[in-house]
Amino acid sequence: MNPVHAEIITIGDEILYGQIIDTNSQWMSEALDEIGVRTIRKTTVGDNEKAIIAAFQEAFIRADLVLITGGLGPTHDDITKKALADYFDCPISINPQALAEIRVLFEKRGFILSETNKQQAALPEKCEMISNKNGSAPGMWFEQEGKVFVSMPGVPHEMKGLMKEAILPRIEKEFHTSPIFHKIIKTSGIGESWLADKIQPWVKKLPSHIKLAYLPGLGEVKLRLTASGKPQVQLESDIATQIEQLIPLAGKYIYGFDQDTLQKVIGQLMTAQGKSISVAESCSGGYVAHLITSIPGSSNYFKGGVVAYDDQIKIDVLGVKVQTLEDFGAVSEETVTEMAKNVRKRFKTDIGIAISGIAGPDGGTDEKPVGTIWITLADGHSLSTKKLTLGKLRDVNIKYSSNALLRMVWQTLIQNN
Amino acid sequence: MNPVHAEIITIGDEILYGQIIDTNSQWMSEALDEIGVRTIRKTTVGDNEKAIIAAFQEAFIRADLVLITGGLGPTHDDITKKALADYFDCPISINPQALAEIRVLFEKRGFILSETNKQQAALPEKCEMISNKNGSAPGMWFEQEGKVFVSMPGVPHEMKGLMKEAILPRIEKEFHTSPIFHKIIKTSGIGESWLADKIQPWVKKLPSHIKLAYLPGLGEVKLRLTASGKPQVQLESDIATQIEQLIPLAGKYIYGFDQDTLQKVIGQLMTAQGKSISVAESCSGGYVAHLITSIPGSSNYFKGGVVAYDDQIKIDVLGVKVQTLEDFGAVSEETVTEMAKNVRKRFKTDIGIAISGIAGPDGGTDEKPVGTIWITLADGHSLSTKKLTLGKLRDVNIKYSSNALLRMVWQTLIQNN
Repeated sequence: MNPVHAEIITIGDEILYGQIIDTNSQWMSEALDEIGVRTIRKTTVGDNEKAIIAAFQEAFIRADLVLITGGLGPTHDDITKKALADYFDCPISINPQALAEIRVLFEKRGFILSETNKQQAALPEKCEMISNKNGSAPGMWFEQEGKVFVSMPGVPHEMKGLMKEAILPRIEKEFHTSPIFHKIIKTSGIGESWLADKIQPWVKKLPSHIKLAYLPGLGEVKLRLTASGKPQVQLESDIATQIEQLIPLAGKYIYGFDQDTLQKVIGQLMTAQGKSISVAESCSGGYVAHLITSIPGSSNYFKGGVVAYDDQIKIDVLGVKVQTLEDFGAVSEETVTEMAKNVRKRFKTDIGIAISGIAGPDGGTDEKPVGTIWITLADGHSLSTKKLTLGKLRDVNIKYSSNALLRMVWQTLIQNN
Repeated sequence: MNPVHAEIITIGDEILYGQIIDTNSQWMSEALDEIGVRTIRKTTVGDNEKAIIAAFQEAFIRADLVLITGGLGPTHDDITKKALADYFDCPISINPQALAEIRVLFEKRGFILSETNKQQAALPEKCEMISNKNGSAPGMWFEQEGKVFVSMPGVPHEMKGLMKEAILPRIEKEFHTSPIFHKIIKTSGIGESWLADKIQPWVKKLPSHIKLAYLPGLGEVKLRLTASGKPQVQLESDIATQIEQLIPLAGKYIYGFDQDTLQKVIGQLMTAQGKSISVAESCSGGYVAHLITSIPGSSNYFKGGVVAYDDQIKIDVLGVKVQTLEDFGAVSEETVTEMAKNVRKRFKTDIGIAISGIAGPDGGTDEKPVGTIWITLADGHSLSTKKLTLGKLRDVNIKYSSNALLRMVWQTLIQNN
């Protein structure tokens, strides 16, 4: 079996001139890799028909499959469709199915369909239309001399929807892909080099058909295992064996696998344990609640939260004592403990969590510099409290500390398991 | 003056297979753009000599300047240097200056110089070495038939150091660059095609040295104007004139320029008007508060919020009437209005905003399908309320509706201006 070779072409002046970062091609190549398709080149060209067609011609020679994003909007600078029609030498005309789907989409949203919008349904006649459930520009599938070109809109959630629902399954079906099996092991609460030290004996004994990569993130490290060269079932079983052997060395840091997130795993544990949670936030400003509620079905265990940014709200809404704030300040173990206990009581939940600190860039003192953040969990039986000492970047401080608080929730829940 | 055309080649399997996002090429093309060099193509190839040389050959034909990153590390899979030596047909040998600089770097860091490290000083003989103050792999500058190739390490801070200190100034000096001036106009609350219709008369009259591009996002559309071909001062003044002429057609949708976000502009208006705000959130689950508090200094006008996910919290903490919830449901104009009015009163702020809806993917009914979301603003004088009818994607619904609510805040604040 020969490996299937893909190229990715992203189209848009905004990528070419560095006005936006191209995250689409990263996502697409990762998705291709997961189904055993090897990306051999990525190309970005601008909204320039000659350059687009040149990129098509070159990719056609080298690759079996060409994925294209961008340049499908209704405005004059989006010329991918014209380039595709010229390249495949066919006229553009209104595709009745595409028009019908755009009509439905617009009716549902209560919008009026303008002439410009209708042009979204005009497609090169040689393509097969792929329904886009999340937007008005359909995907297009072209085949020529055994090679496949797929064109998608550049809006990330539209591209991802098309890929997941239609394009990836079809690529798997139409190409002979040799199995590659990935497993991502998600760890939290330990840095990359410490984790590497801990698991070194295991790494040394990994069989040669399984490769390991470290993918560090904000407050977490992912380990990616990639197995190939054997039948799918064997690969999966080999990876499972390796994970069993990893657990004794790093199990207490592993919160999940693949698409798991701390908030997702917490949701599963909360549901299984029939528990409820509420949150009192100061410096994280709603981000902890946002993470929890990003999970479908979170309304079954998340009752709500208070963003007590102003001290008066800590007093009025959360019932923190004036004396506590005067004696210890808002960023203190005492205040954050009252916040957690009180939100738990007031929201009548099993668990109450709280966070208070100085996100920055200003507001620090010698005693409490920017990046000083307290997190607490109260569950009626015991209290967990931790002080974080982070850096000066507001955005990083908010995200890192919110994740640390979720890790605290996860640790409490698995102890109950 | 002909525009200088550049291509960017990034090398590395980790980029090709989607294990990391390529941020280098975005940074480089933005930096080039600022000195008037136009990027015409970006290419990513893997750690494969044949593919690298093919990319060099193609770029040589099209571009005046080729910037290359990646593949300069000491490990076996980094083969850019060998590809450069083969392409420029010259041997690789130890560069004495490079070796001396690596020695100094290692001494300063207290490391011992190994044979592998010394190889970092081995360079293709036809290149001019460029000192790298932040790492052990030097930059390389090649010239051939009037074209320039520059190779840099892929570690972002090393690449940026080389670019800022040596490469960008030298490009400006050696090439005849003509200034380019960009202005991004940010609009909210109107779709791309409707905006295009509204501003059509203005677009038609744009002078030929100013180009327009539409950059659509979630609930917003950015217009990018790019001016070139005249002195910098003239370009800036020409763009300012065009923006003045755009205002009568689309002014009510324009909330800012360049790096502005709705939450940032709201922060400036709130501060200028000495106002305060609080938020009551249901389906957005804290995301509105998160957006507001992502702005440094937001504690000056944002007092806090309640995430009332459970109806009981809407009653207990926000004081929504039981009767209202029973008669109209949580997702209704009546409930969202009480939420906004009550959070304003309870948090003692000038403005109270609220949001309640069905984010999905489940929980919809025939009467109130997933994506039905109400947003409201109360300021003591008047009420603004709007019903949104969105799609089925939870993440998109949360983000789109939160932005729509921020737009409502912005509209109210500018009316007071």
